[in-house]
Amino acid sequence: MIPTFIVVNAGSSSLKFQVFEQPDGAEARLVWKGLYEGLGGASHFLVRDPSGAKLDETTWSAEDGVGHEEALMHLVSWLSQYREERKLIAIGHRVVHGGETFSGPVLVDETILQTLETLIPLAPLHQPHNLEPIKIVRRRLPGMPQVACFDTGFHQDQSSLVTMFALPREMRERGVRRYGFHGLSYDYIASVLKDYDHGLAEGRVIAAHLGNGASLCALKGGVSVATTMGFSALDGLPMGTRCGALDAGVVFYMLREMKLSLENAERLLYTKSGLLGVSGLSNDMRTLRANAAANADARNAIDLFVYRITREIGSLVAALGGIDGLVFTAGIGENDAATRAEVIAALGWAGLALDEAANASGGPRISSGSGPTAWVIPTNEELVIARQTWSVLGAAQDKLAS
Amino acid sequence: MIPTFIVVNAGSSSLKFQVFEQPDGAEARLVWKGLYEGLGGASHFLVRDPSGAKLDETTWSAEDGVGHEEALMHLVSWLSQYREERKLIAIGHRVVHGGETFSGPVLVDETILQTLETLIPLAPLHQPHNLEPIKIVRRRLPGMPQVACFDTGFHQDQSSLVTMFALPREMRERGVRRYGFHGLSYDYIASVLKDYDHGLAEGRVIAAHLGNGASLCALKGGVSVATTMGFSALDGLPMGTRCGALDAGVVFYMLREMKLSLENAERLLYTKSGLLGVSGLSNDMRTLRANAAANADARNAIDLFVYRITREIGSLVAALGGIDGLVFTAGIGENDAATRAEVIAALGWAGLALDEAANASGGPRISSGSGPTAWVIPTNEELVIARQTWSVLGAAQDKLAS
Repeated sequence: MIPTFIVVNAGSSSLKFQVFEQPDGAEARLVWKGLYEGLGGASHFLVRDPSGAKLDETTWSAEDGVGHEEALMHLVSWLSQYREERKLIAIGHRVVHGGETFSGPVLVDETILQTLETLIPLAPLHQPHNLEPIKIVRRRLPGMPQVACFDTGFHQDQSSLVTMFALPREMRERGVRRYGFHGLSYDYIASVLKDYDHGLAEGRVIAAHLGNGASLCALKGGVSVATTMGFSALDGLPMGTRCGALDAGVVFYMLREMKLSLENAERLLYTKSGLLGVSGLSNDMRTLRANAAANADARNAIDLFVYRITREIGSLVAALGGIDGLVFTAGIGENDAATRAEVIAALGWAGLALDEAANASGGPRISSGSGPTAWVIPTNEELVIARQTWSVLGAAQDKLAS
Repeated sequence: MIPTFIVVNAGSSSLKFQVFEQPDGAEARLVWKGLYEGLGGASHFLVRDPSGAKLDETTWSAEDGVGHEEALMHLVSWLSQYREERKLIAIGHRVVHGGETFSGPVLVDETILQTLETLIPLAPLHQPHNLEPIKIVRRRLPGMPQVACFDTGFHQDQSSLVTMFALPREMRERGVRRYGFHGLSYDYIASVLKDYDHGLAEGRVIAAHLGNGASLCALKGGVSVATTMGFSALDGLPMGTRCGALDAGVVFYMLREMKLSLENAERLLYTKSGLLGVSGLSNDMRTLRANAAANADARNAIDLFVYRITREIGSLVAALGGIDGLVFTAGIGENDAATRAEVIAALGWAGLALDEAANASGGPRISSGSGPTAWVIPTNEELVIARQTWSVLGAAQDKLAS
């Protein structure tokens, strides 16, 4: 029987999953990956093998009423066709916020679940969706070990100075501080730097996770020393639909002068801003690139994205006391050569120079010259969740055995 | 008769003034300077000559009911003792916000005053106090020319990309953007750079206005290309009592979870945060320095201030594409050698090196080595208001004469 576990990344109407097996003493190995989308309405299940080949799919109408619970049970049932050879031993979950309590992954019990629910106010638009599948599995598959893996965890090594807002003590003691996100992605990048360049793993690296969510992380010797995201998932870089860094005074203006409700103001900043808000067209960089020549607003959105990235890179160079390498990852970072070229073109002051041919072909190394190096490294957050899940299970078993 | 005019900088309970005379074809010359403080309660008038020697003072009890109006009338009456030799020709006012309408100083009429009042929501804690004396003078000294000089004006040359938040068009069209403040101070610094180092005036300079309010400005050839303050006076560096850069999500947390009213949340961020909030002790850097050895919170407040300055300098180096010079000004910048030393110590990556002896003695040049230079340059916002007031008056007279 091959020990097999599922990695789950749940959103409001989607559930992405990867199934891993765990060979003895080796790295977790991807077996299948897939997703459920349109949950709560007309929905769709798709599963592929590691090469990307489609293995199976199912479609449901809205009347079928497939939500997260039905999707999870469908997945377990789908896996059961392999029950002769595989044993489902655990489920690992991506959870956006671990607060100040959790600096690493944790085996979820009722107390921990309750603690995670108290963190919903810190990530109101993400945390509830991440916790929902955990609650479903506790109800429907009691006894199944579940591990929560946090987007915030990787940044918990940062110094208190880095994470502190200039707020009164009573607010800081309530946990109002910079946390940072995309930690699973940065954890992966830090873990593979040595495979690209040994010096880089020891050095001062800025990793740019540029996807629909976007942030930068300053790594020193593979440890997070600063990041652009803050208390919520709003801060830092402009994102697909989120505003990024915003003067707090703007929120007061929205509430008092524009008379928006709290909910509408929040929704505007999370879902109608960023690339979508500036372009008025799309939150998808591919669409913006395709329209940038003819559409000034699309061009503006791209230019603002690139400009803010370069400004925040400057800020992180200061945090690191210099820069040895720059890594691009996630959707835009891995696939949009033009964004990479525009960012690097603005970083001549830091000694970066683009290798145009290497950038066009996707790297991995896309810099030329003797200055800091630049790289394209595909991220793998699910593998980090798999690693963390396995590591927590192993630790739990050691504890039981001892 | 010597043409004489008053420069007014009004706060909630204070009114600072300087009296200038305008010799033909020369720079405005300071004659007296002073302030009214404690207005609305037990209040105090003090006036000094340019050397700082006390010339006159008056004290009122709370029962005397001296407010801004009585103070202004007292000042005009005090000046009238010189009416044989001097003619009061105008009053220039510091006004924090000129919005998108005013990129330079303006002669105030009823229409302009109304426009300035519409900007109160952009600076609710400062703009009303700045406009109050203008209204008083219009009522009590009708016909007296008044010029409004804006803290935002100097930054109006910045590109739209620099000033843009990643927000939907309808918000940007309402004027929700980065404005930047301390423009009168940066205008002065830009105007005197050539007296310190000719190359600097043409180069890439970061000016650090570090007072009870604090910001940085990136100057290229003396023109503002970026600054740390944004839409309101809250953003950017932590200040005496203001929070500086804050994740917008914190405001939602304050309102929804901490159940603060809009007014209390705003008051907390403007008046109970920054150096005061972190230290729990004082908003005054001198007090914090005096207590830093024994008081960890005071030390934290200083360290956070310095750290955020160095991070924002990194961001502005990126905006400038490099750095040729760094200028410290305003209360802390001019007087606290330790803050200057700590900031420069963190900027080795940018090639800056401290000249300890020069820094201890106040500069003006406080850097050593062949990298970017660092300077202490006392600011003079009132002189800029005087220059602008005179320039607007001259333009108005030319217009009348033509």
